[in-house]
Amino acid sequence: MPRKIILDCDPGHDDAVAMLLAQAHPAIDLLAVTTVAGNQSLPKVTRNALGVATLVGITAPIAAGAEGPLERSAEYAPDIHGDSGLDGVVLPEASVALDPRNAVDLIIELVMSHEQGDITLVPTGPLTNVALAVKREPRIIERVREVVLMGGSARSGNLTPVAEFNIAFDPEAADVVFSAGWRVVTAGLDVTHQALATPAVTERVAAVGGAKAEFMLDLIAEYGRRYADVQGFDAPPVHDPVAVAIVIDEEQGGGHVDVVRAPIAIETAGKHTTGMTVVDLRPWVVGEGRTSVALGLDADWFWDLVVAALR
Amino acid sequence: MPRKIILDCDPGHDDAVAMLLAQAHPAIDLLAVTTVAGNQSLPKVTRNALGVATLVGITAPIAAGAEGPLERSAEYAPDIHGDSGLDGVVLPEASVALDPRNAVDLIIELVMSHEQGDITLVPTGPLTNVALAVKREPRIIERVREVVLMGGSARSGNLTPVAEFNIAFDPEAADVVFSAGWRVVTAGLDVTHQALATPAVTERVAAVGGAKAEFMLDLIAEYGRRYADVQGFDAPPVHDPVAVAIVIDEEQGGGHVDVVRAPIAIETAGKHTTGMTVVDLRPWVVGEGRTSVALGLDADWFWDLVVAALR
Amino acid sequence: MPRKIILDCDPGHDDAVAMLLAQAHPAIDLLAVTTVAGNQSLPKVTRNALGVATLVGITAPIAAGAEGPLERSAEYAPDIHGDSGLDGVVLPEASVALDPRNAVDLIIELVMSHEQGDITLVPTGPLTNVALAVKREPRIIERVREVVLMGGSARSGNLTPVAEFNIAFDPEAADVVFSAGWRVVTAGLDVTHQALATPAVTERVAAVGGAKAEFMLDLIAEYGRRYADVQGFDAPPVHDPVAVAIVIDEEQGGGHVDVVRAPIAIETAGKHTTGMTVVDLRPWVVGEGRTSVALGLDADWFWDLVVAALR
Amino acid sequence: MPRKIILDCDPGHDDAVAMLLAQAHPAIDLLAVTTVAGNQSLPKVTRNALGVATLVGITAPIAAGAEGPLERSAEYAPDIHGDSGLDGVVLPEASVALDPRNAVDLIIELVMSHEQGDITLVPTGPLTNVALAVKREPRIIERVREVVLMGGSARSGNLTPVAEFNIAFDPEAADVVFSAGWRVVTAGLDVTHQALATPAVTERVAAVGGAKAEFMLDLIAEYGRRYADVQGFDAPPVHDPVAVAIVIDEEQGGGHVDVVRAPIAIETAGKHTTGMTVVDLRPWVVGEGRTSVALGLDADWFWDLVVAALR
Repeated sequence: MPRKIILDCDPGHDDAVAMLLAQAHPAIDLLAVTTVAGNQSLPKVTRNALGVATLVGITAPIAAGAEGPLERSAEYAPDIHGDSGLDGVVLPEASVALDPRNAVDLIIELVMSHEQGDITLVPTGPLTNVALAVKREPRIIERVREVVLMGGSARSGNLTPVAEFNIAFDPEAADVVFSAGWRVVTAGLDVTHQALATPAVTERVAAVGGAKAEFMLDLIAEYGRRYADVQGFDAPPVHDPVAVAIVIDEEQGGGHVDVVRAPIAIETAGKHTTGMTVVDLRPWVVGEGRTSVALGLDADWFWDLVVAALR
Repeated sequence: MPRKIILDCDPGHDDAVAMLLAQAHPAIDLLAVTTVAGNQSLPKVTRNALGVATLVGITAPIAAGAEGPLERSAEYAPDIHGDSGLDGVVLPEASVALDPRNAVDLIIELVMSHEQGDITLVPTGPLTNVALAVKREPRIIERVREVVLMGGSARSGNLTPVAEFNIAFDPEAADVVFSAGWRVVTAGLDVTHQALATPAVTERVAAVGGAKAEFMLDLIAEYGRRYADVQGFDAPPVHDPVAVAIVIDEEQGGGHVDVVRAPIAIETAGKHTTGMTVVDLRPWVVGEGRTSVALGLDADWFWDLVVAALR
Repeated sequence: MPRKIILDCDPGHDDAVAMLLAQAHPAIDLLAVTTVAGNQSLPKVTRNALGVATLVGITAPIAAGAEGPLERSAEYAPDIHGDSGLDGVVLPEASVALDPRNAVDLIIELVMSHEQGDITLVPTGPLTNVALAVKREPRIIERVREVVLMGGSARSGNLTPVAEFNIAFDPEAADVVFSAGWRVVTAGLDVTHQALATPAVTERVAAVGGAKAEFMLDLIAEYGRRYADVQGFDAPPVHDPVAVAIVIDEEQGGGHVDVVRAPIAIETAGKHTTGMTVVDLRPWVVGEGRTSVALGLDADWFWDLVVAALR
Repeated sequence: MPRKIILDCDPGHDDAVAMLLAQAHPAIDLLAVTTVAGNQSLPKVTRNALGVATLVGITAPIAAGAEGPLERSAEYAPDIHGDSGLDGVVLPEASVALDPRNAVDLIIELVMSHEQGDITLVPTGPLTNVALAVKREPRIIERVREVVLMGGSARSGNLTPVAEFNIAFDPEAADVVFSAGWRVVTAGLDVTHQALATPAVTERVAAVGGAKAEFMLDLIAEYGRRYADVQGFDAPPVHDPVAVAIVIDEEQGGGHVDVVRAPIAIETAGKHTTGMTVVDLRPWVVGEGRTSVALGLDADWFWDLVVAALR
């Protein structure tokens, strides 16, 4: 039986690939896509979500959520994702309608109406929606199977020396999610910087052909150009589908992602560290707690998943 | 036409008096009572709200909301309100049923279904519900007429040297509410410490007679004893109905409460000041902004309102 | 026997008046003047100190200390004190030489070489020098009689809504000084805003005549113009000599300044409150602790002292 | 010509090895040893410094400095260093007298009386003394050649998940030192955890023979037992002499320590990160700034230095 997930995202180039993978892979049952302000404003990422859903054939409900962080002002990422949030690609006219429910309500409704432990939350944007759902209905904490998210870093950051974008965008929300008491697995930069769309990957995508592969090629070209300009990467890190891949790996018995249990706290008050995921990797502590961090990725296996999803 | 309000509270002795006044006064149209963890846990304050509603004849819906602060752990006030949240009084068997909706949803639903500018929010507990409503549906900000709340202090605090209980219980929620952009009038300790239930007040209440007056006498006795023990007051400050009284004063042309416009910020990060309402009363600044602070109260007029509500 | 003091200052218009009063009054034995960056840079305030010393006849050593706050960058007050730190007055050519010792060393040397309890420190600028002395030689804490300083506020601030300039300039130093364990009496804005150089005061100064009175008239004119422009005062508050006046009042048996014991903490980490003196004036706490705050001033008596010092 | 250094330390087992190496190596000219509270209280670490100096033949002046952090209370490390600060070894009766000067004064005096660029500061304890010297006499900043210190970590911490003991003991002092503008090279846990006293090292030490080797064997035995108990290390990391080794490596043309330039900030305000050295190792930033971090160590070369120092 495939794993039921809700994909909470802010498309975003790499979110689009996460949507593709979540829709296509047989180990995943995509119950809903919810959107949150992050890479761009809520209207923009929601429009992108509807367009990508049309392209990749998602029929699950798509609902829009929070317009910005719990307490801070929104600082989008146009340098990486462009003014539209998904610059450089052509999206089809959306044939999918937006669900009228608020994303937070939809998350609560789905979790409460499914069996205990059925649903996995897969956030690949800021954690505002998930935090609001926890606050609105704390009973979801024990009903959710786990939260597998893209965000944070155990070592170097990207937005700041030690903070990653998704967490730094709304650190207070991240604090709520990481300290809620449920199981959290985080795919941070430690592992997503191993998911690089190299020329070899591009060749494999080009060999597939068809509308989805064309879209993917445009996406990699634009996203790669921007990552080269802004952060000096030779090949761009495709962060978000790694969270989906972790769920697939779990379903298939594991072995392709190295996940380590460790306490994780979110810094919300530092002068230089706000938005940091403080992962306690001290050898005499690591192995404890209900939170985990992914540190290693079988990149070939990961790209096999993505290429297969394009077929 | 009376003013439509939603009373968001955590009964609590003084909240009970606020419910009484809001129900009885002809200038107020009480649309709903919503509850929030604060003086005691959510189940306790909700049970108290249902009991008080039964006693004073509230028929508007009563809905329960947040179980605790946005980010911090709950620290109730049993020293002031007892283990039940309303120690020392006998409540009737509740004949009123709890509304099945979440308080946050009910607030949003009422505000969005009424005319622009119709509804005034009157929070007399921590601001968690109101903050969650703002985050869930930001369009309520421009639809609400104003927020008139009990909380904070321009000078001395009670929970800490400079912080008042309602704000300090959930400073992050208060930060959301005070910085949302809507008009906020705050009745803080500056003015609620002028609303003292003196022996003269007790005499007037006793002279009224009847179940409500009996309840009020028990309430003052217990609340007064506790305030004497904990904070050394000769007569206890009855905080929460002052917020309701401000709305009444506005409806009746003003003159009984001295309200001053001033910028107000909420401190969420201080070592000694977290939960403080930082009111900018510098003479060369005061008079600006969309936030106001009440500094003076016509106490005789205030007690006239309360005594009239008991009849 | 007069009280031995070290005046640690950053002249500054009102510091100049403090120097005048400390030199002239028979209840004070001025052992040294030390300077610290604050109203202006260290070279400027030191030059001003030498000029004022020449004018008012100070022969005690004058030594320069810290060039800036312990941890923060220096933000001077040219709006109030001008580019020179003492704009609008003509200082005589300094006939006094700068002592070669560092102010911090001089403070330590004087305190350690005098009897236990002999010396009172009177800082009227940021507390950087005093904090450094405490850190370099903690034994001064028990040897000093008390610290009587100008700084802070129990209510409204000036630099920010709740912070006063001297404390906010170097909050970490203030934290060291207020928490050292010695007795601290603070003359904050609560009381220094009662020391206004009104037209009546100006008339009295003019009636004295002579070089010092001329200097004082120029000083009040410039300082008053600036305070009117920047903070809307009708008459400027002459802060710093109030600290000296408190020492005089103590020596003469008291009665002219209302000083209240209360715990005082310094906020160093707030978003809106950094640099605040958090004075615990809650009625059930006030009266405790080794720190005190001045709340009331006999302004006529204060100006009598200043006018007498001009003769 | 050997490099002139001042070793500022808190002996401590590994500080003792740093003293040994600094005294013995011909590339180092040890001008003074100064002590600071850290591993243990100031009297204890000073007594240890005098004993170790006697053992290893240090004739340079030894002076005591700060009794505790700039602003925080002292939290020593008895779990690692024992009640004496140097448990498990027998020190000779000290034949060296304590210099009467304060460490801060001695540092300033030495730096100001030597040529520009002559002196390298080598702190291996908390940075309180160095910060106080910078504040007392800022001209030392441009006169010092560089600061090569043991402290911090670019990745995992020891005292907390991300903070190392020396920095976390006095983060405000570290902030002063790292932001002063001079060149700072930091040997943090990244590299000192490569300096492990393995059984092979112990064998080499035993083969030397003599009083110093006996002392070193006792030291490793006790220190190793404690590190095994507290942090689960198979062989204890001998942190402090790595800073001395970096100076030696620089003098000898380099090649044995991998040092990378990167901006370093000190976190003083975080909930989970206070005391962290925030090293900006993002690939598109690294290589900038006046601060550097050591990341790799030729451990064989390092132990060759230590063993040679024992002869």
